[in-house]
Amino acid sequence: MAEEAADHGQATVSLSEEERRALLQAGRAWAAPSRSAAHTPWRVDEDLDLQERRGALPGDKYVRVGRLRREGLEKVSPGVLQATKRASEPSTGLGRAATLLRRVVLGRPLASTQLAHERLSKPKALAILSSDPLSSVAYGPEAILIVLVGAGSVAYSALIPITLVIVSLLAALVLSYRQLIKAYPNAGGSYIVAKENLGPAYGLIAGASLVTDYILTVSVSVASGVAAIVSAYPQMAGYTVQACVAIIVIITVANLRGIRESASLFALPTYVFVGSMFVMIVTIFVKLASGSPHAASPPPVHVTESLGVLLVLKAFSSGCASLTGVEAMSNSVSAFKPVEWRNARTTLTTMAFLDGGMLLGVSITAHLLNLGIKDNETLLSQLATYAFGRGGAYQVVQYSTFLILVLAANTSFTGFPRLFYFMARDGYAPRLFTRLGDRLAYSNGIIILGVLASVLVAVFHGETNSLLPLYTIGVFVAFTMAQAGMVVRWRRLRGPGWRHGLVINAVGMVMTGVVFVITAEEKFTAGAWIVLVVIPILVLVFRAIHEHYGELDGLTATETPTSPAGINAVCIVPIADLNAVALQSLAFARTMSENVVAVHVVYEGEDNEERIARLRAKWEAWGNHVPLEIIESPYRSLVQPLLRFINVVDRQTDDATLVVVLPEMVATRWWHQLLHNQTALRLKAALLFRPGTVVVNVPYHLRRTRRLMRLRRGIEADEL
Amino acid sequence: MAEEAADHGQATVSLSEEERRALLQAGRAWAAPSRSAAHTPWRVDEDLDLQERRGALPGDKYVRVGRLRREGLEKVSPGVLQATKRASEPSTGLGRAATLLRRVVLGRPLASTQLAHERLSKPKALAILSSDPLSSVAYGPEAILIVLVGAGSVAYSALIPITLVIVSLLAALVLSYRQLIKAYPNAGGSYIVAKENLGPAYGLIAGASLVTDYILTVSVSVASGVAAIVSAYPQMAGYTVQACVAIIVIITVANLRGIRESASLFALPTYVFVGSMFVMIVTIFVKLASGSPHAASPPPVHVTESLGVLLVLKAFSSGCASLTGVEAMSNSVSAFKPVEWRNARTTLTTMAFLDGGMLLGVSITAHLLNLGIKDNETLLSQLATYAFGRGGAYQVVQYSTFLILVLAANTSFTGFPRLFYFMARDGYAPRLFTRLGDRLAYSNGIIILGVLASVLVAVFHGETNSLLPLYTIGVFVAFTMAQAGMVVRWRRLRGPGWRHGLVINAVGMVMTGVVFVITAEEKFTAGAWIVLVVIPILVLVFRAIHEHYGELDGLTATETPTSPAGINAVCIVPIADLNAVALQSLAFARTMSENVVAVHVVYEGEDNEERIARLRAKWEAWGNHVPLEIIESPYRSLVQPLLRFINVVDRQTDDATLVVVLPEMVATRWWHQLLHNQTALRLKAALLFRPGTVVVNVPYHLRRTRRLMRLRRGIEADEL
Repeated sequence: MAEEAADHGQATVSLSEEERRALLQAGRAWAAPSRSAAHTPWRVDEDLDLQERRGALPGDKYVRVGRLRREGLEKVSPGVLQATKRASEPSTGLGRAATLLRRVVLGRPLASTQLAHERLSKPKALAILSSDPLSSVAYGPEAILIVLVGAGSVAYSALIPITLVIVSLLAALVLSYRQLIKAYPNAGGSYIVAKENLGPAYGLIAGASLVTDYILTVSVSVASGVAAIVSAYPQMAGYTVQACVAIIVIITVANLRGIRESASLFALPTYVFVGSMFVMIVTIFVKLASGSPHAASPPPVHVTESLGVLLVLKAFSSGCASLTGVEAMSNSVSAFKPVEWRNARTTLTTMAFLDGGMLLGVSITAHLLNLGIKDNETLLSQLATYAFGRGGAYQVVQYSTFLILVLAANTSFTGFPRLFYFMARDGYAPRLFTRLGDRLAYSNGIIILGVLASVLVAVFHGETNSLLPLYTIGVFVAFTMAQAGMVVRWRRLRGPGWRHGLVINAVGMVMTGVVFVITAEEKFTAGAWIVLVVIPILVLVFRAIHEHYGELDGLTATETPTSPAGINAVCIVPIADLNAVALQSLAFARTMSENVVAVHVVYEGEDNEERIARLRAKWEAWGNHVPLEIIESPYRSLVQPLLRFINVVDRQTDDATLVVVLPEMVATRWWHQLLHNQTALRLKAALLFRPGTVVVNVPYHLRRTRRLMRLRRGIEADEL
Repeated sequence: MAEEAADHGQATVSLSEEERRALLQAGRAWAAPSRSAAHTPWRVDEDLDLQERRGALPGDKYVRVGRLRREGLEKVSPGVLQATKRASEPSTGLGRAATLLRRVVLGRPLASTQLAHERLSKPKALAILSSDPLSSVAYGPEAILIVLVGAGSVAYSALIPITLVIVSLLAALVLSYRQLIKAYPNAGGSYIVAKENLGPAYGLIAGASLVTDYILTVSVSVASGVAAIVSAYPQMAGYTVQACVAIIVIITVANLRGIRESASLFALPTYVFVGSMFVMIVTIFVKLASGSPHAASPPPVHVTESLGVLLVLKAFSSGCASLTGVEAMSNSVSAFKPVEWRNARTTLTTMAFLDGGMLLGVSITAHLLNLGIKDNETLLSQLATYAFGRGGAYQVVQYSTFLILVLAANTSFTGFPRLFYFMARDGYAPRLFTRLGDRLAYSNGIIILGVLASVLVAVFHGETNSLLPLYTIGVFVAFTMAQAGMVVRWRRLRGPGWRHGLVINAVGMVMTGVVFVITAEEKFTAGAWIVLVVIPILVLVFRAIHEHYGELDGLTATETPTSPAGINAVCIVPIADLNAVALQSLAFARTMSENVVAVHVVYEGEDNEERIARLRAKWEAWGNHVPLEIIESPYRSLVQPLLRFINVVDRQTDDATLVVVLPEMVATRWWHQLLHNQTALRLKAALLFRPGTVVVNVPYHLRRTRRLMRLRRGIEADEL
């Protein structure tokens, strides 16, 4: 095939007549005047929807075709289009399959306009927003007993006094939050109250505390709910963790689907639970009064401590877990029917009475019956067994306990994403937390909460009492911050009745602050230290994120000029050979700049001389339209010498914008990728970390050419 | 802060005075005349090494600095640079650490010029190239016995006749290959012989067969070697697979380091093995002659078959595993000292005599001693135990058996990458197999062989006798193809003595062909079917790869014009806001084309009206330099509506080259990536599959600005 030898380059190589002709032709086209001058430059068509197109047959006139509709876009006003649902879904096979799967799990996507805020009546609000504090009856009194057990059954007598203190704390807290609800009728989370009144740093502390609180509410509630079921079915004891994770997954998916609307359904378990608790307490009193035999006395316990102040404090701090969730009402004032703050206050007070009543009732009956701690059976289960036996009524207690605890976990799935939404808006959390999912829920927050709570449950083997020492800390930090914020607010605004309000919130602040100190101290080694480590870390993370977004907003870090006049592009085109792929890259580079240099790295390690000579000869035949630099790489490295060369060019051209034009092989079949050295990809990855370098990817697809695609589209169009 | 309301857009929004001023200024700069006209366009400097640079202090004159040297590049001739070792290594911290790790495992990289071909003397060649056939004594006779055991110990008498047939087959094969060695003194693998004489299709069949052969050689040899060690130390029986994989990993790393030079070291185990085999055989004969007691008769076996023709054929086909590796010599003729083919022939013949002698000796002694099959003890171990007891001599036999088997596995690590190199050169295998690694070995082939052999060993639990039925098939296909190729070659060339040669190769072809048929039939259900399925699949894969590379060479699939005149760029710039990041993208787009359209997708789902109005107002304040299209996305999808919009623009502009300009946020800290929605990345991934679309990435880095980098570089330069 070799006809004649070309005498360019170090070695003599021969090009076939065919090659020579093709290259000459490409070179001529290169030198031709630009078409863009002859063509009217394309401008955005104000009437984008209509476009002239030549008909399929050669003799056809131009026809006008509706382009927008076919792509699923609709014109709303000049310059504003709207994407239909179809235009929001992927059109490829794989993408469609993924979409279908999402539809099955999450349901059909909702348009943003369908975002409706349901207003809650007081009974519904009570049921939904109080499930967290009310459900804590299921583990609060038991948590006290577990500590007291260390000093023997005689110490159980401390249960009632401790509960009384907790109930009075509840009263103070509710009084405080009644103030807060009126002051922040829109969104009054501890984060916002602390941020606005004490400053961002305190807001972040409150936020970080709430984060730990929300995660722990899910873990504790679900673990406690599963414990209620295990009490009824002891054979389930081996599957605690699996059951907990399964429930969390169900709650997560339900929230992703957007379950907020079905409030009525949620109200039921709460009322059944509260009702059955009071019935149970009354039944026990009646039975005891009528002289029914006491339950068996608790198993003898190993006495390790005497009933001192320390033990009582410890038991008290454990019992404070009952107070978690009191703040939920204040986060959701705007969800009430008008007058929002008034309704919210009433509901909060009602909740306090129900909660206090149940806590006292359970403590007194447990004390009277002389009940203790049992493995795999909760205190509530022991009470219910005494009251009703193991029949249907017992089942009602256990299942409603389980359900209200699941509801309590569910409240975190509203609160956590909301908190992150607010923090993301302020730039303290990743922006992705502001995005609404398919079903108008803040999906990212929901998913992250589900994952973290699952991990926590798994790490603590689903044991409520191992999780409880971590729980109270975060809540009481948030309580204290919120009350402190209110105190500052009263002092600042000095509105009507400010002295009265200030005193209430100050008392609340001091009480919750004291509880925080007691809890942190008493529970430190039992797990509270984890939270005390996590909260500051979270605060630092929030600050780092904020700083990062701040940099971004500062707009100081652009690296290429922001006006066309400032751009003096210098294009570097790494080529593997002088073929069509290289030519299209070089051509595109030339349209950007007069300053184009092609660079070829010889790295194969064999026949280098011949390769170089051959490329030079081709270059010569093509017409030398662009200077060519060759880099020999005896260590067979490709990317590094290219990067070094780019550095050299960069330093030569101080005011230039460096542009690297890379051909991008796009495989139409996945395995094609394996057949190429991925040079472009590796170079791109390396250039990512090179400041101020524009990377242009000129694609070449294998098999499916653009022409082919066009033809296919034409056929599709005709079929429509 | 809001001063006055702007009345653009649907809603009234207000811009601060500061914002307005900044935007106005950016707009003025936009309208300014291009600087590129004023600047002398940058051209590639013939004297790249020297460049004028202003000194660090304001009053400094320009100084000339050596740029190339600092980057590790050296000028070889005009337009040709050479990368030093330093310029071939990464300069980032992570890259350096990876390089260091590679150095530790693989050693310092070698330059391509250091590629030296060591020539082997006959004794060394015998040791290295014959380890595969010679080592098969370790499993060949045992493989026959395992089949015969089915017909009871009486059938063991068939061992000697079968071995005799195999030895005569060996003779025929060696005669055949003596012809082939002379005909292909450079590289005479079955693949090349079959391809050149029978056509590419047959070459691929031979190639595919050899691929299975090489992988199985590694697996069988290593498994058999480990069996030798397990025979000596039965307590190791539980760690067979682990030991096999560990050995394969060691061989792989050794080959990646390029161990070819240390031939002398390799010679030792082969000679020790051959020597100890003959000493063992002679010792057994002497012991038997002197009336030493026989070894205990083999354990009674469960007779399942009678000694018929089928059983003998099956036993024979099992024994043919002894013949594998005979072709190794013909693949490496060029490695011999001159006259290459003559030395190779002599060595091949010597190997045949040694191999035949050992096979016969082992069979006869095993028969005389009435040895059978034992779990966890090889036949050779039984023989050695009888000959020497379990002392030092026994250890020598076992360890040299182990070592020669490892050497046999090692030969595949030379042959397999060589085969893939040839196939990749012809375009039948991925090009990456032609790349030399750091140590001038074909690393990719070595790694793949190591992985596949490890997988195979693991799947078959490291049991030699499970792997053997797969083994022989591939070898005999390759044998037959090579001999058939030789027959065709003799007929075509009709050189001196061609009739004689033709007869020899024809006999070889028929015999190996018959053995292939027998083996395929007898071993089909035992595992041979796997190979018979894999070979055609491999052939199809090779062809598909070839077709793919053919398409690439056809240069038919370019999607953007190959000359600047043909390019009429239409730029689409998706923007998130009108900020510096958007401006630099728009500015860059404008340098490419007059036809630029900015597009903004409103997908947040909240405050859409306000967002749109605000953006429009900013746009107006900036000066409306580029048309702006807004897409509302009520389903909060971002990428899909953008793709649809790009489709619309594309269809409007039939002769245009579509360019999408994307700002690319480059995080300097890994976690920064998490803080962004990765819109650009997702859009880029989607555009990958869109034919004919050029993607331009305009980078903006956070923290480290280009100016900063420049300053730092300047400091480094001064420090040098």
